[in-house]
Amino acid sequence: MTSARDAAPTPTPDGDARPICVIGLGLIGGSLVRASVASGRTVWSATASASTASAARADGYDVAQSTDEALARAAEADALVVLATPLTAITEVLRRVDAIAPRCRLTDVVSVQVAMRDLVEEHAPTTRYVGGHPMAGTAESGWAAGSATLFDGANWVVETDDGVDTGAGSVWADVAELAWACGSRVVPAGSEEHDAAVARISHLPHILAAVLAAVAASDVTHPGRGFGVDLGGLPLTLAAGSFADGTRVMDTRPELVVAMCEGNRSALLAAVDDALGRLGAARGSLASTGGLAATVNAGHTGRQHWQSARTAPEVRIPTGLKPAELRDLGREGKVLTGWS
Amino acid sequence: MTSARDAAPTPTPDGDARPICVIGLGLIGGSLVRASVASGRTVWSATASASTASAARADGYDVAQSTDEALARAAEADALVVLATPLTAITEVLRRVDAIAPRCRLTDVVSVQVAMRDLVEEHAPTTRYVGGHPMAGTAESGWAAGSATLFDGANWVVETDDGVDTGAGSVWADVAELAWACGSRVVPAGSEEHDAAVARISHLPHILAAVLAAVAASDVTHPGRGFGVDLGGLPLTLAAGSFADGTRVMDTRPELVVAMCEGNRSALLAAVDDALGRLGAARGSLASTGGLAATVNAGHTGRQHWQSARTAPEVRIPTGLKPAELRDLGREGKVLTGWS
Repeated sequence: MTSARDAAPTPTPDGDARPICVIGLGLIGGSLVRASVASGRTVWSATASASTASAARADGYDVAQSTDEALARAAEADALVVLATPLTAITEVLRRVDAIAPRCRLTDVVSVQVAMRDLVEEHAPTTRYVGGHPMAGTAESGWAAGSATLFDGANWVVETDDGVDTGAGSVWADVAELAWACGSRVVPAGSEEHDAAVARISHLPHILAAVLAAVAASDVTHPGRGFGVDLGGLPLTLAAGSFADGTRVMDTRPELVVAMCEGNRSALLAAVDDALGRLGAARGSLASTGGLAATVNAGHTGRQHWQSARTAPEVRIPTGLKPAELRDLGREGKVLTGWS
Repeated sequence: MTSARDAAPTPTPDGDARPICVIGLGLIGGSLVRASVASGRTVWSATASASTASAARADGYDVAQSTDEALARAAEADALVVLATPLTAITEVLRRVDAIAPRCRLTDVVSVQVAMRDLVEEHAPTTRYVGGHPMAGTAESGWAAGSATLFDGANWVVETDDGVDTGAGSVWADVAELAWACGSRVVPAGSEEHDAAVARISHLPHILAAVLAAVAASDVTHPGRGFGVDLGGLPLTLAAGSFADGTRVMDTRPELVVAMCEGNRSALLAAVDDALGRLGAARGSLASTGGLAATVNAGHTGRQHWQSARTAPEVRIPTGLKPAELRDLGREGKVLTGWS
């Protein structure tokens, strides 16, 4: 893939690239601060954690004394405010935004989009908000785990619902340019489309991994529960490659997985229902004809389509495309790397 | 883990370690030939593929002109015959065993055990058969993909049903010593226990991976099927870590996955039913209270138990333990590294 770092950002009225104000300095927020500073932006931040603030300042980054101070600077400088706290802390932050910087340029890197949009409309309704979601992360968390290169080559979803201003100087353009500055590719999507997509490729994998790990460990965690012979620790002793891969995400702290999946409840329900239907069909076929070819072939085909999608066509776009035109590019599997 | 390569094998009547006759030179059979030659055994083999035979001979290995010739040598030398063909070819091979070496020492590395035992009882009933299953493999296949170190540190299940002779000089001891000679640890298990365990930790992961990949790709493979908005290629563009890990096994050739899973039908049905029950419970909880903590916590706990099982206690055993005593060691999560 080509680097998008050379995409020229839309200048602010005084000619500089848009300043960035990051609220929250965990893995994603902390990486965003590092990456956007590395790209030459003016960046400041805030965190509720005194120890994180000290660590970030010791590393040379500009951390405001409080969220209110960071937001006041953002209002003054017409900066792009990026919310990078957990979803559970968002309401309180939005109340401060509404009090201090009610008209600010606002985006987020929280993950779910419909729930975020609803919260913004309720608690900070006059902000100029466009949601975002960089598809990047590790099993680690916290400031120390962050990296200026976390977003290199990642896909960064930018909310592109009908009615969003996508023109030059818009918040949509700000978010896209921030993504490009961090080395990411932009994927335009509507809020509901985004949530449905991540339910299938991020949240459902966690649920299936949980089910798989629980099945394999069941005779250890619930010995003698009565399903025929008790296997004890035998399955876990024999478990290797396919089990290890299929359950890896269960190494993540369970409260983070629960919050992430529950935050996308209605889209995840649809994905789980799809999976239940397919697993039930496999079960029925195995029990009747014994045949699993349809199930396995569909899975193999799906995986092949994903392998193809890893070399997604990269396109540059003119300014002024309408939201529906941009969303079509996302549905076609294209990723955006800059202005044409 | 300690190496088990120094476990002294039971000598044959003429004082040498048991000779090995391997039928089938794919990934597993080819690796077994290399590993057992490297351990100092006398080894010969047979393959139905002329090109594989040429390749193996070019690499310096002893490949008989035919399966019959290899089996005749095995009968003469009281060798341990190891069946390493796909399950679909086993019946024809067993007929040759019955014709040429009807009393031979016999084991296999085919994977499923109840089906293998039934086939042996039907087609080669007078052989001295003890099933085996080294838990090793790669996504590759064929002679060229094999390696003398494939079994290093792997767990090798040896069939330990009631009535199996596990004493000194027995076929059970032959198989255990072959596993140790190849660097593996022995896990004793009954045929049905083995099949139930691998259904949970090897075959179910393939079915769940197939379901996950099919769900994510559904709007590409079946556009416009009518579940709300059509996401097109969007999910696959966004799919990264958790999807990649959860579907990796779908890179394997689908006909191999189908044959493996269908060969363990009844045990796999029970595992799929367990998974369906747990996924349905997650669905119900998500739809009613919205809570996924029970599902995710069970998965996290299962994964932690597996991490602990990776440092399974290694024990050496005296000769003469009864099958039930050996199976208890397997259920306790222990692995055997040699004679005490």
